[in-house]
Amino acid sequence: MIVLNGGSSSGKSGIVRCLQEVLPDPWLAAAIDTFVDALPARLRSGSDADGIAFAPDGGVSVGPAFRALEAAWRAGVAATARAGARVIVDDVLLGGPASQVPWQQALTGLDVLWVGVHCDPAVAEGRATARGDRPPGMATTQAALVHQGVSYDLEIDTTHTESLTCARVIAEHVTRRAEATRDGDATRPGA
Amino acid sequence: MIVLNGGSSSGKSGIVRCLQEVLPDPWLAAAIDTFVDALPARLRSGSDADGIAFAPDGGVSVGPAFRALEAAWRAGVAATARAGARVIVDDVLLGGPASQVPWQQALTGLDVLWVGVHCDPAVAEGRATARGDRPPGMATTQAALVHQGVSYDLEIDTTHTESLTCARVIAEHVTRRAEATRDGDATRPGA
Amino acid sequence: MIVLNGGSSSGKSGIVRCLQEVLPDPWLAAAIDTFVDALPARLRSGSDADGIAFAPDGGVSVGPAFRALEAAWRAGVAATARAGARVIVDDVLLGGPASQVPWQQALTGLDVLWVGVHCDPAVAEGRATARGDRPPGMATTQAALVHQGVSYDLEIDTTHTESLTCARVIAEHVTRRAEATRDGDATRPGA
Amino acid sequence: MIVLNGGSSSGKSGIVRCLQEVLPDPWLAAAIDTFVDALPARLRSGSDADGIAFAPDGGVSVGPAFRALEAAWRAGVAATARAGARVIVDDVLLGGPASQVPWQQALTGLDVLWVGVHCDPAVAEGRATARGDRPPGMATTQAALVHQGVSYDLEIDTTHTESLTCARVIAEHVTRRAEATRDGDATRPGA
Repeated sequence: MIVLNGGSSSGKSGIVRCLQEVLPDPWLAAAIDTFVDALPARLRSGSDADGIAFAPDGGVSVGPAFRALEAAWRAGVAATARAGARVIVDDVLLGGPASQVPWQQALTGLDVLWVGVHCDPAVAEGRATARGDRPPGMATTQAALVHQGVSYDLEIDTTHTESLTCARVIAEHVTRRAEATRDGDATRPGA
Repeated sequence: MIVLNGGSSSGKSGIVRCLQEVLPDPWLAAAIDTFVDALPARLRSGSDADGIAFAPDGGVSVGPAFRALEAAWRAGVAATARAGARVIVDDVLLGGPASQVPWQQALTGLDVLWVGVHCDPAVAEGRATARGDRPPGMATTQAALVHQGVSYDLEIDTTHTESLTCARVIAEHVTRRAEATRDGDATRPGA
Repeated sequence: MIVLNGGSSSGKSGIVRCLQEVLPDPWLAAAIDTFVDALPARLRSGSDADGIAFAPDGGVSVGPAFRALEAAWRAGVAATARAGARVIVDDVLLGGPASQVPWQQALTGLDVLWVGVHCDPAVAEGRATARGDRPPGMATTQAALVHQGVSYDLEIDTTHTESLTCARVIAEHVTRRAEATRDGDATRPGA
Repeated sequence: MIVLNGGSSSGKSGIVRCLQEVLPDPWLAAAIDTFVDALPARLRSGSDADGIAFAPDGGVSVGPAFRALEAAWRAGVAATARAGARVIVDDVLLGGPASQVPWQQALTGLDVLWVGVHCDPAVAEGRATARGDRPPGMATTQAALVHQGVSYDLEIDTTHTESLTCARVIAEHVTRRAEATRDGDATRPGA
């Protein structure tokens, strides 16, 4: 499994699509945005404190119903991987370690590559303007916040690097790790 | 859990959104279309026999990589439900019983309402034209095919009935079944 | 030219796509929604009194910058038709006759079929729920409002009639009118 | 008026959205992609030689019905500008001068800033992969082709420059030109 964590408009989705292209095996995408789209409209509209709401300054708050369904979604993603699928998660860990720990618990026993996707806040905000479908301020607010206290196997920065180039760096790590695992198994005593 | 099965343009997605609105608890949507969107582009483009391909006559064929990831996705949906989320699946069981059995196995032990979503082929095809984003012929081809040999708890027909009305019929069944389960539990010896 | 007027979720866009399918000549679509999407984000976000804003009760208000660009857009649509394109306009005439007159002035000299697209408010609202991308209340608010004082060549009702069937009714009128015009020309003195 | 010309995935749409944000007056977007979306489905599906078709190698061919409606659309865009709207066109001039001349004729008398949007072919192709909704090869094929023999007032390169930065460069030209026009008027004899 690969877990990408980065702020809004840091380039995660583009990297996921490029990873799906450059990795030789087929990998399934599991994005927090897709989870949010799967919620009832009332939990996405900001009108219900139980759901997810976007403040005018770019802040995001989530309520108990959101958290409960999100935990079940994480369990589902973990089960998808345990059933044999290669999965690339793309999430926004707004709570820092408090958001990473539930993922680590859900993914226990799976081989996970944690990737931090950094981007200069002003550049991310400019990309949000260019996309035109994200609330102003969200990219700036999240740029540093999502990485506080989160630990990674690999960190990339999309400020001056294209999605495809970032994907190739990640893919190389995935390949090297797979080879190391295979070689490690081969040289273990008794193997 | 609720599983909706019906052909392309039979109205499943609209019913899912209405169900999410009329059911008092929050339900998460899990659509086969969302799974397909999560695949690598090359498995969705029809250029790779490993993936999903759409024939000019509206036929659909899927290869081994598609089937393997689909099985893992089903396991993930089942795990999401076991983790406590209420889930509405919306699928197109092109293989009839051969497509229903893997779901039944994945969902073993869960309380599932199986719903057949019927629609007159010509009406479904007309709705595909009105939507403008589905290959011609697909709605016609799938209208009867997806129901062959599939067993349901409830069958609805969207030919002359609006999505919201269909959703209310399904919601009523869900509520009655929940009450029956609760009452059953309450009157069990020792309860 | 064909101008369709109807409230939100009355089925206009679906009818346009079906008309493009059933009419033998190629017709270009010109939708008010496409015009709104072409505006700067700040005029669409409701934060700027100069633009378009959607009230929580489904009401819509527009400011001077919106009106000025809309008038220029109407002039552009008229010029597209005068340059030889067959055009289907799909609009929401919230101001009644005050919204129809500017169109009539812009389209002076062109052969226009005015079509009223009616839909029962509750049914339109249910379809908005099924689509999931329209503010609640808008379909109900607009259902009757958009037709007040507007005059038509043809009125259709999508409450119990599919988009494709409605499109066929409109297409028949278009064909009959074209034949009448041609026959009229043929029998004019000197023709 | 501003006309942007560049290949697929060179970043035109993002620059348009940023221009709409940074320019103080409201500007309307007129994109060739929006025109294509307004065509009947059969002219967009590649199945009809009258319309637009995308070859597996990224090539694009267009037929007579496409050309006729496109000419009418250009006339409509010009009329929108003459009616007082500020308009940003975003087009792909695949025919070089043969594609630029019809625009120049349609826009006669209007103050037009011609902008060439360049991008390294490999970078544009990588961005197409990251977007995931463009046929492979199209960005590469068009990168140089669209600029052959086309003349510009300003040329920008998105290979290493963000959309927002490019938009600011263009906006500065627009402002300077507006000032020059105003000053020119003010200092003319008799003014």
